[in-house]
Amino acid sequence: MLIVMDRTATQADVEGVVAAVERMGLRAHPIPGVQRTAIGITGNRGVVEPTALENLPGVLEVIKVSHPYKLVSREFHPDDTVVSIGGVPVGGTRVVLVAGPCAVETFERTVAIAVAVKARGAHLLRGGAFKPRTSPYSFQGHGEEGLRMLAAAREASGLPVVTEVLDTGAVDLVARYADCLQIGARNMQNFELLKAVGKTGKPVLLKRGMAATLEEFLLAAEYVLNEGNPNVVLCERGVRTFSDFTRNTLDLAVIPAVERISHLPILADPSHGTGRRHKVAPMSRAAVAAGADGLVIEVHDRPEEALSDGPQALTPDAFGDLVSQLGPIAAAVGRSL
Amino acid sequence: MLIVMDRTATQADVEGVVAAVERMGLRAHPIPGVQRTAIGITGNRGVVEPTALENLPGVLEVIKVSHPYKLVSREFHPDDTVVSIGGVPVGGTRVVLVAGPCAVETFERTVAIAVAVKARGAHLLRGGAFKPRTSPYSFQGHGEEGLRMLAAAREASGLPVVTEVLDTGAVDLVARYADCLQIGARNMQNFELLKAVGKTGKPVLLKRGMAATLEEFLLAAEYVLNEGNPNVVLCERGVRTFSDFTRNTLDLAVIPAVERISHLPILADPSHGTGRRHKVAPMSRAAVAAGADGLVIEVHDRPEEALSDGPQALTPDAFGDLVSQLGPIAAAVGRSL
Amino acid sequence: MLIVMDRTATQADVEGVVAAVERMGLRAHPIPGVQRTAIGITGNRGVVEPTALENLPGVLEVIKVSHPYKLVSREFHPDDTVVSIGGVPVGGTRVVLVAGPCAVETFERTVAIAVAVKARGAHLLRGGAFKPRTSPYSFQGHGEEGLRMLAAAREASGLPVVTEVLDTGAVDLVARYADCLQIGARNMQNFELLKAVGKTGKPVLLKRGMAATLEEFLLAAEYVLNEGNPNVVLCERGVRTFSDFTRNTLDLAVIPAVERISHLPILADPSHGTGRRHKVAPMSRAAVAAGADGLVIEVHDRPEEALSDGPQALTPDAFGDLVSQLGPIAAAVGRSL
Amino acid sequence: MLIVMDRTATQADVEGVVAAVERMGLRAHPIPGVQRTAIGITGNRGVVEPTALENLPGVLEVIKVSHPYKLVSREFHPDDTVVSIGGVPVGGTRVVLVAGPCAVETFERTVAIAVAVKARGAHLLRGGAFKPRTSPYSFQGHGEEGLRMLAAAREASGLPVVTEVLDTGAVDLVARYADCLQIGARNMQNFELLKAVGKTGKPVLLKRGMAATLEEFLLAAEYVLNEGNPNVVLCERGVRTFSDFTRNTLDLAVIPAVERISHLPILADPSHGTGRRHKVAPMSRAAVAAGADGLVIEVHDRPEEALSDGPQALTPDAFGDLVSQLGPIAAAVGRSL
Repeated sequence: MLIVMDRTATQADVEGVVAAVERMGLRAHPIPGVQRTAIGITGNRGVVEPTALENLPGVLEVIKVSHPYKLVSREFHPDDTVVSIGGVPVGGTRVVLVAGPCAVETFERTVAIAVAVKARGAHLLRGGAFKPRTSPYSFQGHGEEGLRMLAAAREASGLPVVTEVLDTGAVDLVARYADCLQIGARNMQNFELLKAVGKTGKPVLLKRGMAATLEEFLLAAEYVLNEGNPNVVLCERGVRTFSDFTRNTLDLAVIPAVERISHLPILADPSHGTGRRHKVAPMSRAAVAAGADGLVIEVHDRPEEALSDGPQALTPDAFGDLVSQLGPIAAAVGRSL
Repeated sequence: MLIVMDRTATQADVEGVVAAVERMGLRAHPIPGVQRTAIGITGNRGVVEPTALENLPGVLEVIKVSHPYKLVSREFHPDDTVVSIGGVPVGGTRVVLVAGPCAVETFERTVAIAVAVKARGAHLLRGGAFKPRTSPYSFQGHGEEGLRMLAAAREASGLPVVTEVLDTGAVDLVARYADCLQIGARNMQNFELLKAVGKTGKPVLLKRGMAATLEEFLLAAEYVLNEGNPNVVLCERGVRTFSDFTRNTLDLAVIPAVERISHLPILADPSHGTGRRHKVAPMSRAAVAAGADGLVIEVHDRPEEALSDGPQALTPDAFGDLVSQLGPIAAAVGRSL
Repeated sequence: MLIVMDRTATQADVEGVVAAVERMGLRAHPIPGVQRTAIGITGNRGVVEPTALENLPGVLEVIKVSHPYKLVSREFHPDDTVVSIGGVPVGGTRVVLVAGPCAVETFERTVAIAVAVKARGAHLLRGGAFKPRTSPYSFQGHGEEGLRMLAAAREASGLPVVTEVLDTGAVDLVARYADCLQIGARNMQNFELLKAVGKTGKPVLLKRGMAATLEEFLLAAEYVLNEGNPNVVLCERGVRTFSDFTRNTLDLAVIPAVERISHLPILADPSHGTGRRHKVAPMSRAAVAAGADGLVIEVHDRPEEALSDGPQALTPDAFGDLVSQLGPIAAAVGRSL
Repeated sequence: MLIVMDRTATQADVEGVVAAVERMGLRAHPIPGVQRTAIGITGNRGVVEPTALENLPGVLEVIKVSHPYKLVSREFHPDDTVVSIGGVPVGGTRVVLVAGPCAVETFERTVAIAVAVKARGAHLLRGGAFKPRTSPYSFQGHGEEGLRMLAAAREASGLPVVTEVLDTGAVDLVARYADCLQIGARNMQNFELLKAVGKTGKPVLLKRGMAATLEEFLLAAEYVLNEGNPNVVLCERGVRTFSDFTRNTLDLAVIPAVERISHLPILADPSHGTGRRHKVAPMSRAAVAAGADGLVIEVHDRPEEALSDGPQALTPDAFGDLVSQLGPIAAAVGRSL
């Protein structure tokens, strides 16, 4: 924390700030400058938020310096974390491909898609049984029946299953079926849900919220780690901006940013990140080139009939074509598929 | 829905789209133009999302025309809704003032603040017992003990209580104490929670999510109404933009926008919407001048000691000064405090 | 400037940063903390940008502390600036109303609108002779002929004229006709143009760019003041965000923000800021309630025939109604119309 | 254009809209639906903007359908445009590398950097003689002397020169020295400047504005083409969003979006797009993988001494390393360096 004093601040103002800081159990370090004084603050963070200082006389601005995350930070854990999802390592040298339908629809179709994506190179199966839908009138998923479809598809294909959980009340149920619990973008700051999936110890795929800063994203992961669960995989899926030719703006620079300050693996989801089928392949290639630890891609055998997000799903063959493009790019960044 | 064809689209392309539309049980209305053909689509919305059409040959663009909300819409319910919170009408001619601390801290302090804001013109008491905090290391609220503090403050002051509920598992508990259940910005698209508060029939204060479009905001309210609960009060509390001199950007134009297309009342929260004490009064005045049905304002007797969001809280006396400024502005727009 | 060191940084890393800072002619003040060291930097700003320090070994982050603006700052000039535009004071106790068509179209119509808005309370006439249009196929304004129309309207109505200049090559021409030179949002960082209008000494109405932070906005004004021209009036006209129910998002909190850190007057433009006629009156009232020094409002006698921005223009009578609503709001904030 | 009528609109309202449309010389095509009527509008675009229709009785919404750009559109010009800059083709199978310092500083250093980047694979030299700087107190470039430095560097290295022009008054001067005129992000909607560079016939590198939608970006290019100059190269350099870990948010999805609707080549500028050296290489790889026709990269022999944007510049050797990473990625998308 740094307090910047107004250039007209008096010596008494500076002393007032120092006294207030010390009453909080922190240490104040005044730095007199040519035009103004700044006051550095050190000490452990307490319950009181020192931003309250900005209303003291003579204070121009309060600048936060340290970040509140710890467990997710590379400073505290220098080596890369590798999360095992049903035996598939995420965060190692292999680029992981998570593929499947947006929502699971029938046993037959779910199995068929799982087998098809497995045959074309997928390592994990995705699919929603509980769907967060913007409108109450849209298809909301098949619930537990959908989880059974995913289990059948795992059985048939051998692919471990990643599926979303929407509510604390359903965490135990979903955890019985899934190999990895997905927290969707809309729930990134549903802190009770983060604590609940943290307590399961299961791998968690945490999607970035549509308006989340990097610090907020990492703090959401911190909630899970703070429950004793280190198995968090981050996922960039696009943020909300003015840019209107895609459904969201895929912020790929978050990949090297996370790599620099956190030890957690990070995937990209170009399907939700663009919302348009013809942009999925270019942005998938881009994400791998930027260093993503894997991709989450929607695949549907008949996208035009999909009950959810059809326009962004690839066919299994288009997915296969994409996989063949990704191999040389993974190799160019020292990885493999 | 409107399909815009590429100018090089053939007659066969147009016929292909018409056939696909009709297979969905909808009607297609081709509109031949000078440079290209457009195809209007009518019929009830089915389960299939017609945006899947955008991958058909010859299609340039698919433009959504109708909005999926119904119950919240002024088209379906022309008269203004007035929601009664513990006997206080919200949405009528009176501008409602909801005031209190960000988080409730002690019995004594909560009662004192409630009595103080009541004396200065508040109509409802706000205060958090369950707090959604970005960091797991920040104060998370006193839980049920906090709800008891709010009940004591209601007893002492006569002010009905608005307080946040974070999770479906706590809805019954919070509903036993509160006069109005608040859904915070981070939970605006926590659809299971929206359904759960819908089922209680209690008044709901629904805050706009930080990245929510107006359509998404109204659809979140639609989830509550769709459970048979018409008692929804909307609240603008700032959205996330690049603009960095406030914590969020208070998007006051949403007030006339909501008034035009929805019958629900809408409040503004200038405390969270700015995050800076010295901007609370100007933006409170602005919200009332823009036509807000009320304000949500954080008041704390010792802001510099607040356990949460101290920098944006007003003292009771500053709140009183603000109330005296608001009277003539309310009168200028044909309302009273 | 504050350098935050990594917690694993060595003493040698810290000394390396100190040495680099001193080579730049600045002073370094190390602040050892519990977990890491921070280094405060003081001294006059030189040509070298010290952000280059962030690539030195052991540096975690570089945080900018001081703002580069001076002349526009209230720290350097504590009293409010009042700019006289053709004898009309902007920035004093009176709320100034600038009204007129988006583009000037004919002599007759321009004069008629000027007389009509004057009769209903306007203090200044706005109107574009040179129009910045997103498409090359849209009406681009009448150029010098348009300036003559404005001069005729000034003659007829007595209202001083505010009009936009788009290019350095036209500054002298526009300055011969106008009482105040407007710099539009798209040119807020056209630095050559800012210098050129600075050299004229004429009052300048500087609109905030669609993606401008407050610091960038003030630095644009600093360019004008730095040429010896103190007559700058700022204007908020909406910024670009994801929020899609208005053309731009009117960021009214910039009004108290500017008031706190700058001595320059600031207006609001609810016509461009919303792009929708029915939102102009509510947002005009809100801007005055927030403390704006005035409003810029588009008025056209036949909006549906306007050559530019018709959907947002008020009729003269609607403008008159708005003026009558604004009086009591101005009074409530201690001002008059 | 599509007019959506309110569901309570009467037949007379519909007829009123039809009549208004026809008075504009356009044709109206009513489409009666289950709940409401929509009215398609066809005909050539006139001077009047039909959005004025949205204030007619019974109109709920007006939806723009056609885009105003023509010459830049792939509909009008199906084949890719290849622009020759001093003999180097941009937009063909080769991925073009534009490298050099942010600002040119001295003859010696400019020549040395040019020779160094040429030796490591650059095809074009970039460098600013006129610099648009946010603050009037920052280094503004060496002007014509800087242009001479660039000419000397071209002479020494054989690399054609790309350099920015800030103002119509300097177009002729810059065009005498440069092989390609750059329009910076801040000037993307400086329409007079766009017309002026259009008239030169010289290749133009047009950077996307920080708040520019894709339509606005293409319309800026349309201004240049409309002057008879088809030699436009687009460049994505990051847009402004809430995301704060990079200076701007590099919106790489614009690359496949442009490729789909325009025939113009598009480059990416990861230096400005991230503002951080350690993100330049990952985002460069990502841009090529997404299909960019080339990259613009800042290279400086002593970044920590650079007079402008030092923190984002690569050393020549780091640039060389990056080039060697890019080769296999270019090959993976069917291109070469």
